[in-house]
Amino acid sequence: MEHLREPDDIVALAGGVGAGKFLRGLASDTGSFTVVVNTGDDITLHGLHICPDVDSVVYALAGEHDPERGWGRRDETFRATTELRARFDSPEAWFNLGDLDLATHLFRTDLLRRGATLTEATAALAGRFGISARILPMSDDPAPTMVETVDPDTGAHRTMHFQEYWVRRGARDAVNAVRLDHARVAHPAPGVLEALAAAPAILICPSNPVASLAPILAVRGIREELAAHRDRVVGISPIVRGAPLRGMADKLMPAAGLEVTALGAARAYEGLLGAWVVDERDRDLAPLIERELGVRVGITNTIMSDDDDAAALARFARGMIA
Amino acid sequence: MEHLREPDDIVALAGGVGAGKFLRGLASDTGSFTVVVNTGDDITLHGLHICPDVDSVVYALAGEHDPERGWGRRDETFRATTELRARFDSPEAWFNLGDLDLATHLFRTDLLRRGATLTEATAALAGRFGISARILPMSDDPAPTMVETVDPDTGAHRTMHFQEYWVRRGARDAVNAVRLDHARVAHPAPGVLEALAAAPAILICPSNPVASLAPILAVRGIREELAAHRDRVVGISPIVRGAPLRGMADKLMPAAGLEVTALGAARAYEGLLGAWVVDERDRDLAPLIERELGVRVGITNTIMSDDDDAAALARFARGMIA
Repeated sequence: MEHLREPDDIVALAGGVGAGKFLRGLASDTGSFTVVVNTGDDITLHGLHICPDVDSVVYALAGEHDPERGWGRRDETFRATTELRARFDSPEAWFNLGDLDLATHLFRTDLLRRGATLTEATAALAGRFGISARILPMSDDPAPTMVETVDPDTGAHRTMHFQEYWVRRGARDAVNAVRLDHARVAHPAPGVLEALAAAPAILICPSNPVASLAPILAVRGIREELAAHRDRVVGISPIVRGAPLRGMADKLMPAAGLEVTALGAARAYEGLLGAWVVDERDRDLAPLIERELGVRVGITNTIMSDDDDAAALARFARGMIA
Repeated sequence: MEHLREPDDIVALAGGVGAGKFLRGLASDTGSFTVVVNTGDDITLHGLHICPDVDSVVYALAGEHDPERGWGRRDETFRATTELRARFDSPEAWFNLGDLDLATHLFRTDLLRRGATLTEATAALAGRFGISARILPMSDDPAPTMVETVDPDTGAHRTMHFQEYWVRRGARDAVNAVRLDHARVAHPAPGVLEALAAAPAILICPSNPVASLAPILAVRGIREELAAHRDRVVGISPIVRGAPLRGMADKLMPAAGLEVTALGAARAYEGLLGAWVVDERDRDLAPLIERELGVRVGITNTIMSDDDDAAALARFARGMIA
């Protein structure tokens, strides 16, 4: 599916769930935009190529997401995964694949096996979900985010895939480092750098800065592109009053040397931001952030209780670009 | 899962559904046996390696089959396939893959991708279903049965995979030939010839002789092994009073030059049979079959209304070997 689009799409950099919510607001506020999605948490399980963040964004934009669970499809069942776990004792069944979700993974994996790039497979997927926004993976190259952990019970050191740390182990290990070695040698997907160069605004979604955004920024040339156009870059803090709005956005921030505050999250993007949006309840942090990071700080409601809230937040963020 | 087994297992040659019913009877009648299963209808769809006959046999022996539908798992749902069909418009979604069934295909495909042979993957599958019988694919080599068809509407000639003819097109095309070229160059799976050579009895299940059994017999050396031991070979007619007991066992028989009778089915195994079991209602055909094919004909009830019927039929068939 090929989209006719303006050359000057707004670009949003996105992780998974938090981004999905925000992007629904952006979609209702603007016609055409491009999303560059983290693929550092992509993983192959049961031979299927799974892109958790791409799928969260696609499902959210299509209104097919499960708002309560926070990931996957709504009206989902888990019969195949339950069978893989119970009968087949599959060592990979710790990752819950819904039965509808499986259709997505089968569709994508089959396209990749037939020679499609991840960019092409993602465009096809988005097309099947009727999404008009352009969804780009950050890279067509495999770029798994690895986590160096210390088992809290045994003290054993391990380096594991991000999903294993996040989902299988429930983020319960101490983290010594988040390794983006693969992302650092990955090339940006076709169109990513061009979209960033031409974008009138680059929005950093309220996603986990370490788990979701750092992998995107580690891909060759992406950080430099943002730095070159920082006057057009607006980030939205995923942290409000020292805690994540949803999910585990606070996890890994300390391991990356970032305090879990709207200031700490902003520091993850030091040198890249023209503006930073914080929640009204973090109003008191605004002068400090402006002084420390030299960015304009916007203050608004960042709690997206519904799509209207998300649209208002997206509008506010866009408005930060003069 | 490795089985301890007697070297002199009974061997059954099996297609899918009809065989599954019979094998449930054999399992209740005898402890240890080996099943050599047709893999001519195996097909790769959505990148998954699907073995319809192997799975029918495994599900039946485990009591996990759907007796009404005649294929697949009981208590099955079809959410992933429905999604592949409706949303993804998948050109391969004409084959119904249940959600529980998908777990089987993911398990097997992943094993194959990691280097297991089909024999090994089948043994692992059977183990997960708690089956004590040894289930052997006829071959580890791909051996798709192809069908030369004539479209009844357009007159167009096509050569297609057996499953496409059988499932996608509902066996509605005229058939010029069933091609077993791949089976003819396939090597028997490890253990098949040895099992046949040592078997005190070789049972040909009441499956479609053209679609299910001919591919097995086409594999290198298998026909010769039966011919060498024909005194120990007993076949059970899938045809009663000129019609199949279930499924489409009559389909393809005319294309192979076989009349749809208990005699026609026996002719499919000409030179290979020591004995042939026909239904009581075909009692009148017995003398003709004995004379024409030079085999002993056993007459019993072959309609398997329940497992007891199937056990009685299996016992009867074994009893045909002196």
